[in-house]
Amino acid sequence: MTTTRSVTVTDRTGLLTDRYELTMLDSWVRDGSAGHSAVFEVFARRLPEGRRYGVLAGLGRLLPLIESFAFDADEVAWLQEQGVIGDRTAGYLRDFRFRGDVDAYQEGDLYFPGSPVLTVRGTLGECVALETLVLSVLNHDTAIASAAARMVTAAQGRPIIEMGGRRTHEQAAVATARAAYLAGFASTSNLAAGRRYGIPTVGTAAHAFTLAHESEEAAFRSQVEAQGTGTTLLVDTYDIAEGIRTAVRVAGPALGAVRIDSGDLADEAAKARALLDELGARSTKVVATSDLDEFVITALADAPIDGYGVGTRVATGSGHPTASMVYKLVAVSDSIGGPLRPVSKKSKDKVSLGGHKTAWREYDDAGRLVRETFTVPGDPEPAQARRAQIPVMRDGTTVHAPTTDEIRAFTAAALQSLPAEALAVAAGAPYLTVVPHPIEEENMTAPTKALIVVDVQNDFIEGGSLGVAGGRDVATRISEHLAAHAGDYAVIAASRDWHHAPVDGDTNGGHFAAPGEEPDFDTTWPVHCVSDGPGSDYAPELATDAVTHHVRKGQGVPAYSAFEGVTDDGAALADVLRTAGVTDVDITGIATDYCVRATALDARREGFAVRLLDGLHAGVAPESSEAALAEMAEAGVAL
Amino acid sequence: MTTTRSVTVTDRTGLLTDRYELTMLDSWVRDGSAGHSAVFEVFARRLPEGRRYGVLAGLGRLLPLIESFAFDADEVAWLQEQGVIGDRTAGYLRDFRFRGDVDAYQEGDLYFPGSPVLTVRGTLGECVALETLVLSVLNHDTAIASAAARMVTAAQGRPIIEMGGRRTHEQAAVATARAAYLAGFASTSNLAAGRRYGIPTVGTAAHAFTLAHESEEAAFRSQVEAQGTGTTLLVDTYDIAEGIRTAVRVAGPALGAVRIDSGDLADEAAKARALLDELGARSTKVVATSDLDEFVITALADAPIDGYGVGTRVATGSGHPTASMVYKLVAVSDSIGGPLRPVSKKSKDKVSLGGHKTAWREYDDAGRLVRETFTVPGDPEPAQARRAQIPVMRDGTTVHAPTTDEIRAFTAAALQSLPAEALAVAAGAPYLTVVPHPIEEENMTAPTKALIVVDVQNDFIEGGSLGVAGGRDVATRISEHLAAHAGDYAVIAASRDWHHAPVDGDTNGGHFAAPGEEPDFDTTWPVHCVSDGPGSDYAPELATDAVTHHVRKGQGVPAYSAFEGVTDDGAALADVLRTAGVTDVDITGIATDYCVRATALDARREGFAVRLLDGLHAGVAPESSEAALAEMAEAGVAL
Repeated sequence: MTTTRSVTVTDRTGLLTDRYELTMLDSWVRDGSAGHSAVFEVFARRLPEGRRYGVLAGLGRLLPLIESFAFDADEVAWLQEQGVIGDRTAGYLRDFRFRGDVDAYQEGDLYFPGSPVLTVRGTLGECVALETLVLSVLNHDTAIASAAARMVTAAQGRPIIEMGGRRTHEQAAVATARAAYLAGFASTSNLAAGRRYGIPTVGTAAHAFTLAHESEEAAFRSQVEAQGTGTTLLVDTYDIAEGIRTAVRVAGPALGAVRIDSGDLADEAAKARALLDELGARSTKVVATSDLDEFVITALADAPIDGYGVGTRVATGSGHPTASMVYKLVAVSDSIGGPLRPVSKKSKDKVSLGGHKTAWREYDDAGRLVRETFTVPGDPEPAQARRAQIPVMRDGTTVHAPTTDEIRAFTAAALQSLPAEALAVAAGAPYLTVVPHPIEEENMTAPTKALIVVDVQNDFIEGGSLGVAGGRDVATRISEHLAAHAGDYAVIAASRDWHHAPVDGDTNGGHFAAPGEEPDFDTTWPVHCVSDGPGSDYAPELATDAVTHHVRKGQGVPAYSAFEGVTDDGAALADVLRTAGVTDVDITGIATDYCVRATALDARREGFAVRLLDGLHAGVAPESSEAALAEMAEAGVAL
Repeated sequence: MTTTRSVTVTDRTGLLTDRYELTMLDSWVRDGSAGHSAVFEVFARRLPEGRRYGVLAGLGRLLPLIESFAFDADEVAWLQEQGVIGDRTAGYLRDFRFRGDVDAYQEGDLYFPGSPVLTVRGTLGECVALETLVLSVLNHDTAIASAAARMVTAAQGRPIIEMGGRRTHEQAAVATARAAYLAGFASTSNLAAGRRYGIPTVGTAAHAFTLAHESEEAAFRSQVEAQGTGTTLLVDTYDIAEGIRTAVRVAGPALGAVRIDSGDLADEAAKARALLDELGARSTKVVATSDLDEFVITALADAPIDGYGVGTRVATGSGHPTASMVYKLVAVSDSIGGPLRPVSKKSKDKVSLGGHKTAWREYDDAGRLVRETFTVPGDPEPAQARRAQIPVMRDGTTVHAPTTDEIRAFTAAALQSLPAEALAVAAGAPYLTVVPHPIEEENMTAPTKALIVVDVQNDFIEGGSLGVAGGRDVATRISEHLAAHAGDYAVIAASRDWHHAPVDGDTNGGHFAAPGEEPDFDTTWPVHCVSDGPGSDYAPELATDAVTHHVRKGQGVPAYSAFEGVTDDGAALADVLRTAGVTDVDITGIATDYCVRATALDARREGFAVRLLDGLHAGVAPESSEAALAEMAEAGVAL
């Protein structure tokens, strides 16, 4: 058991702030509203592409930094010199200390798009000043923990060492070690993190160590003398097999581990294991390093590797180095002590929902997380749900300070509340999306949305006669979307291109190139999607269980839009949707630049609100796809 | 003119270190080699994918941190408790201070793969201890500066504000502002960076500022009262046009600027400019923010935008948040005061070249950088070349400390030494690769490499009868590669699939599907690359000026490998290569899983050393391409 130490890097954190926070504060001090009441919330509008959940981290670092948020006299004078603030605000800042309240999801908890992970309540002035610092800490640490948790899952219980400090800012390195450890890493190479947070530290040797000695044997002998036979010897400076023989000769069969840092790791690990066994070093472990991440670790699952070292990829969030959380004003009073009014912003593509949110979690009998919702003041509290937020700061003083190992255990338990498919490394939609409680209840009784899956057929995926790159992935992702969201839709319609066989010169009304002529790939095409042929089948990756209406189109004529087709009952798609009370249509499928485009434009013409779902469509060519997206946007399709 | 302030974040930096640095030190203190002489070098083996140059940054932060690299008694005791070091090393560390020498490229200078940007000389013990700290600082700051320089070039003189602090660790945020400013950004939102490094700070207001007021007008009035009419008003909280009208009504036509942070920026900027002009606010500037990076800025070049704010993408290195520099031992003595011997590591895929390197730059008469080479001790100094490295630390004391603005001016001049194509945002190969001086001279007299460009034809790119996604990009990138490297090749051969027209049932030996049958896309195919037809032409994006041999294949029969074809003179490709003295073959083209694969395997069978050039090939489908890559690797093709 270790304990956290709330060591702060600097005494005062006030200047770790964007200039506009203090110019806004200056305006508010001047116009008298700095003392009005306010509520700000931190949330992420979306997860990084393909991620199914996020892991909140940084809270244990943030709270002491908020307590240290202050300015000394020199700093205040400098702010005045720079024209950031006037005299009255200078007086305000000299005495500044955050005296408000903070509620938050516990550090290490899961979050999803819209989860209100942190709520700051206080005066408008003191709340706005904290924005930059709050976001810096949470965005960084959460990006690391979210990536690290996926690596821990992929490692299936085998220990991972965090060793990415040299790939990131020297202080970010310390926070990286902490976040990775909270997410389940076993240890770190970073000594400052070991000392500051009580995280176990480990280390072996670098290639330089071997190179600096007159021989590999001399290097190993020196290391074993200093560290004992339980140490880990790096065996790939010259020849790996030779290195392993030398290592076992020097340390004996009780050698702790060998480390391999280059080459084909699966292959080298198998050879190393066999050689170690042959040399009698059956208990000696094999540790692999070199550009590992959750994907490589998954691919190495069957290799005889006993532990992993991960550097660059964990320190850079495995492709997503920031969590894109935002800090938004959701309620404010118009006088000191006045009532809070909810506020929301409505500019294009950045809508925020107003009002102070209380988040709720629902679990099934097996402890599986099944729903996350929120209520705003005045809403009834949902039954059988647990609050996700707890008080972490009251009147500017931290009231929740678990130890590092307590947070780590909490994270492990939170991950266990997810089903296996949400924990998988493969890309997918967020496992949950957090929605307002009453609206969701409404949705559940009568959904008014439809999903249209356009032409996800064998001929339009890789290997088909008109194969579109990425088509197969789109099929997989649509299936994942359906697994999570089928219940949200009143109608799920899947269309298929369905053409006559090209016998006796039938070109389906000129849609197929005439025999002997080359298709122009604009209005004439190679033979494709012949009715009842293998090319017209749905792609095997597409799960069709939830499809409520199958639509076929183009029987003897060219047809791009699903609205040109008919259901098995002979009904037109637009009529089906209207009868079901549908107002909103989500579009997915193949190809963005042809049939998806035509379907989306027809859906708009029919008067529906239309969204094209990101990541769930693929186009024939980048240029025409971009043009199609622009055209759809112009027609009012939300992209 | 501002001056740098060498304020360090912590007093002592010794623990910002990986454990293995100190366990290696412990071994060396025990075995007596800690006092041997050593030379370590920092370099990057490669640039991030598509980058043509890097910008070195972090040196001005690093040198004071090296001067502060020390341990207090408590830290040393903790290291002993943790089993990191023994008693003798504890004594060594209590007195530790780096007393060696550092040479480096100037901060803000360009670097390329292999550039020895920093050289540390001292005792083995003191040099190894610095590894983690040196890499953390340089990898972080260089990643930021390298991305920022591209954005500055894209902005074509329009100012860019760095505002990414909230997207990265709170201390990394300060270093980010510094690195971006050195690379040419105009200012930062980060106040700590303004105070610590003298960087101009700017700021406007957040959406929260408007939301907290009872109306947008009240918010604007409050801001103008505090900041004056020269301020920048954020106009997109509700409706942009309405926001602009309100802004001009409140501030008058002398309003400094309006900021737009959402929507289609090109469109909104054009509308904003027109409306401002209509309202008489002709001098009011338009500032755009919201997910900008070098690519978006390039795309917005024609929009009436006067300045940019860049956040997330600069703070995360625009997709490459770390510079992947390494710190390698290149020379060491085997006794105290003994002669240095060069060392190098030969394990698979991570070769380092031994010996202490002196780097040289050559420029043409116009001041254009044309070559970077290095020499090791004993090599003659190249004529007409300038040394790239300067002394920055002597006996542990910093001897080179330019001001922030001096570094910024140096960076601007360094960027001007690059040709326009190297400065372009489009992906390309590194503009230079740093090679040993004598070896390069040899290469220049008689290259022994060949380049094969496989089937970059209209029918195999997007829109062709067998179009491969990404084919067009591959054509562009091969052209860029040829522009930079044509001189390295003895032979540049381009192959084309060249089939009989399918008249009178000619299927080219069963290669085309028989009339009326569907191709199986494995051994039978749609009609493609008919001789002298448009589909068999080289793709328009492929520059063929430098091609020395045109190879045609498959005339009446199936043919996948370029080695099955003949040149215009009727010669076989293998004979052409051997006659030219070729030993090594680089392969590029379409499709990875068919003709590229077959060509690479044949090249190996013919006994050549073969490389498949990364990013210069595209496959029909991911699965078969991966299988092909595995098969090529198995056959000894370097990937």
